Amino acid sequence: MMHSFEEGMMPETTVNNGVNVGALLLAREALRAAPQAAKFTWRASCRWQNGTHSKTNVKGFFGLGEEQKHKTEFSFDADHPEIFASEDLGVTPVEFVLVGLASCLTAGVAAVAQNRGIQLRSVEAKLEGSMDIQGILGIDSDVRNGYDDIKVTFKIDADASKKEIEALVAQSQKRSAVYDIVTNPTNVQVEVV
Amino acid sequence: MMHSFEEGMMPETTVNNGVNVGALLLAREALRAAPQAAKFTWRASCRWQNGTHSKTNVKGFFGLGEEQKHKTEFSFDADHPEIFASEDLGVTPVEFVLVGLASCLTAGVAAVAQNRGIQLRSVEAKLEGSMDIQGILGIDSDVRNGYDDIKVTFKIDADASKKEIEALVAQSQKRSAVYDIVTNPTNVQVEVV
Repeated sequence: MMHSFEEGMMPETTVNNGVNVGALLLAREALRAAPQAAKFTWRASCRWQNGTHSKTNVKGFFGLGEEQKHKTEFSFDADHPEIFASEDLGVTPVEFVLVGLASCLTAGVAAVAQNRGIQLRSVEAKLEGSMDIQGILGIDSDVRNGYDDIKVTFKIDADASKKEIEALVAQSQKRSAVYDIVTNPTNVQVEVV
Repeated sequence: MMHSFEEGMMPETTVNNGVNVGALLLAREALRAAPQAAKFTWRASCRWQNGTHSKTNVKGFFGLGEEQKHKTEFSFDADHPEIFASEDLGVTPVEFVLVGLASCLTAGVAAVAQNRGIQLRSVEAKLEGSMDIQGILGIDSDVRNGYDDIKVTFKIDADASKKEIEALVAQSQKRSAVYDIVTNPTNVQVEVV
């Protein structure tokens, strides 16, 4: 997420990956003139259910200077699997991070391909995040809580050379919001009211 | 995620937050004796649909020395909203990061409360992530692509003092996998096959 544009390139009309690059280039010009409208706030609202099970809803956000909302409210169950004595009513929180990273890089590939006039036929990404749970269980304080490494493997079928496909993926990484969030430190403030 | 244990504390049997702390303390002892079993790999498999829309499936993972799987396969649509000329068929990738962070800290609060003998009645977390989309749009290369700040606000009703509730949240942060992933750098390797 979101889009990965390069200056001075024009979309080719014969290629259709379903990304409206023309509208996005116009949006970019509009935001260049009114940078305040580029300030977004994304939101999520989580409610504990029982044990490690929670439900998180996503609907409203702020951007382009005003309140916005998704067409529908989306709701996500998170839980731990049965091997952790939980009920497995949803994916784990760390798997949600993989979902965000996968979808961000994939949307980026589609947007860059559109902008470069490359027709995509299929894009698949497999993600693997390795983690030593001695960290979260408090067994060894030298072991971090989060992923020690995430590997993303793309398989892309497109009207392009291997080099061009690799360049699509590289440009998607360069402009990916979630790739940035995961690979660089992000400030999180937690408070109790 | 996952659990936030402290040495030398015992669960009180009169408190029930739905977290099986006894089983988890046994698991911790087992993993202390066999640390290799603590190495987990979490996976997600993403397939591009059209435009910025993708579907990511989550089912199998590796842990406790063998292949594991969730009881069901979970599938997540991601997309961009209509204001970005997309179809809004799912939440954005950056919102999935908020879902992961919210659910991780919330499950942690439940597990720590159980371990400290504190009965929870309700736990709500509101998350807000601010982002200047000049970064992802390539307008200003000094603006980062990801969140510049995430704020988490907990509202907790429990049989405990304000100080004890704040301490629950602090301990959950200390052991949270997603909090660690977001606040600290995590290596991501991307390759094309």
